[in-house]
Amino acid sequence: MVDAIKKLAVIGCTGSIGRQTLEVVRSLSDRFKVIGLTGGSNITLLKKQVDKFKPQFIYYRDKKTDAQLENYEFLPEEAMASHPDVDTVVIATPGGCGLKPTLAAVKAGKDVALANKEALVTAGEIIIAEAKKSGAHILPVDSEHSAIWQCLEGEKTPPARIILTASGGPFLGYTAKQLTEVTVEQALKHPTWRMGKKVTIDSATLMNKGLEVIEANRLFDISFEKISILIHPQSIIHSFVEFIDGSTKAQLGWPDMRLPIQYALTYPERLLNIQLPRLDWDKINQLNFEQLNMDSFPCLKLAIEAGKRGGTMPAVLCAADEVAVDFYLSNHIGFGDIANLIQQLLKQHETLFETQPTIDDIQNADAWTRENAIRLVLGEKHAN
Amino acid sequence: MVDAIKKLAVIGCTGSIGRQTLEVVRSLSDRFKVIGLTGGSNITLLKKQVDKFKPQFIYYRDKKTDAQLENYEFLPEEAMASHPDVDTVVIATPGGCGLKPTLAAVKAGKDVALANKEALVTAGEIIIAEAKKSGAHILPVDSEHSAIWQCLEGEKTPPARIILTASGGPFLGYTAKQLTEVTVEQALKHPTWRMGKKVTIDSATLMNKGLEVIEANRLFDISFEKISILIHPQSIIHSFVEFIDGSTKAQLGWPDMRLPIQYALTYPERLLNIQLPRLDWDKINQLNFEQLNMDSFPCLKLAIEAGKRGGTMPAVLCAADEVAVDFYLSNHIGFGDIANLIQQLLKQHETLFETQPTIDDIQNADAWTRENAIRLVLGEKHAN
Repeated sequence: MVDAIKKLAVIGCTGSIGRQTLEVVRSLSDRFKVIGLTGGSNITLLKKQVDKFKPQFIYYRDKKTDAQLENYEFLPEEAMASHPDVDTVVIATPGGCGLKPTLAAVKAGKDVALANKEALVTAGEIIIAEAKKSGAHILPVDSEHSAIWQCLEGEKTPPARIILTASGGPFLGYTAKQLTEVTVEQALKHPTWRMGKKVTIDSATLMNKGLEVIEANRLFDISFEKISILIHPQSIIHSFVEFIDGSTKAQLGWPDMRLPIQYALTYPERLLNIQLPRLDWDKINQLNFEQLNMDSFPCLKLAIEAGKRGGTMPAVLCAADEVAVDFYLSNHIGFGDIANLIQQLLKQHETLFETQPTIDDIQNADAWTRENAIRLVLGEKHAN
Repeated sequence: MVDAIKKLAVIGCTGSIGRQTLEVVRSLSDRFKVIGLTGGSNITLLKKQVDKFKPQFIYYRDKKTDAQLENYEFLPEEAMASHPDVDTVVIATPGGCGLKPTLAAVKAGKDVALANKEALVTAGEIIIAEAKKSGAHILPVDSEHSAIWQCLEGEKTPPARIILTASGGPFLGYTAKQLTEVTVEQALKHPTWRMGKKVTIDSATLMNKGLEVIEANRLFDISFEKISILIHPQSIIHSFVEFIDGSTKAQLGWPDMRLPIQYALTYPERLLNIQLPRLDWDKINQLNFEQLNMDSFPCLKLAIEAGKRGGTMPAVLCAADEVAVDFYLSNHIGFGDIANLIQQLLKQHETLFETQPTIDDIQNADAWTRENAIRLVLGEKHAN
């Protein structure tokens, strides 16, 4: 059997997920062709990637680039994500800018390997509805959602419960008080995963886990009451699915994002990739689990509340978190202020809250949040 | 959606698996109808079960029974297993006597919920070939094979490796020397599972795990080199499947045979059964794993060797083990003698070894082994 070559567009190719996607593509170069690459401001890396993969189309946000990229056709992200030549779109860009290309790809009926959490969190209902209309497949790349997806594959009965595992981040066991004083350096030291800065901070606050809860709710059509979180410091078991008969399935793997990325790209097949690490049971003597102390992680609570409210609240949550993490990374606010700022913005948004928002409403809520966040932290003169 | 009622024949209804099968049927009484029940010599229990489930057909091996069972139609096991009124045949009888009804059910194209290991171990190739011909489904009931089956459900790519978990039985950590002196009472105390005596002793010698390795090889068409064993004392993870991409799936559940029994009966659906226990992650703080010391468990080595040789060797292995365990339970031989006796018989069988045996050859090898085992232990005058 000769398998067709899948043609990919990688939206956000210079970030952590984008780079690892291209590592997978390089390992399985007979199975994939890169049609499009879009980067942000890291033009040096983008140039290297473009030289290597020779895509048909490129895009980059920072316009101050030199002539070397001029040989390639410049195509905006949404056009690239919906281009007829593309089979699978990898949404590897973090934050709010993942929404538009995701929606474009979904509307065009593409296979969408989705690593961006915010698109589903802020506009999950719209995206899922569009996917149903167009026949697009949303293939989760997050390790937890990939695990759940793998466990559900072939099952005829919906899950009774989903248990998202959480490493607990670098501050597992810290009290709420201790957490107010942690430094950026400490927060960036994730015990098990190599990830971008934003996601690493989100892992330390457990906002990341909160976004994953919302994502699971949207993606697997399962109520919040049936989603729980279990601390599992080794990050070997990526999540559990419990079924109605009491049987539980888990997906395990060495914590390496290339594995869920590859699964999304090769699905429904699995392919040998000698670059990918294997679990070594000679060395795994135990797997540990503990209950989560929700009180230490206010961001997680805020996320779940916003997810349950729905409407524009998750957009406010995501935008507020993006800005708050930026302020934390630039030492404008402390670790504990991340949750405080998000909470304040969610509260302020009550008067503007839309229960059935359009994409425009969601983007307005996002813009409103960013502006108000800046105003709250830096004062009136910095907001435009 | 109104679901059809499945009509069951339970071959070996008075043993541990048989009783638990009927517990599941009672819990899901709107989904199953017991058409046939076959017991061995425990007529008192059989009578109770027959009164409760009112099957169309019954069978029992011990003919010295009273008049109360005479209202039911007596039908031999093979006829019952292939009767047109039966949808699913549960083979719950242990040892060599599972082979004939399994084969009859498979030839008749039934769904066969197979708890008996020996049928597949001694005649796996014939059974699998017959199932392919008739369209029969073999639905494994062993917790390990049920786990593997559940993990493979929906997968398009064959497993790269199967890891059978093993509690290690009551003698985990014992040296080969210590093992020669263990009592029957010690051997019957299994740490995690409630099972019949034969299986409990097989779990203590790890013969059980050896038979499971052979069963996995036959059932999942995977080479012996790709099957490994991992000690997992809690018996929560029932087995792992590793895929070619490095992803691993596991099935977990409280150690209770009713769960894999029910899965085989309700497949491809899963049904709520409030009688079945759930994993409680508040109480599971760790799952432990260790490598197996093969040297302490010669029965396991003998089983894997016999499985690799194939032909009539697995029949000799199973029959020798059955007799050896009987002799051990009746205090005729010591724990360490179980492996010695099996090894002696496998060696003696070399001259009679058939590589492509028929069912008759397999049954002759079985009979030859039992006779010779008795001769070896009790001397010439006891063999007929």
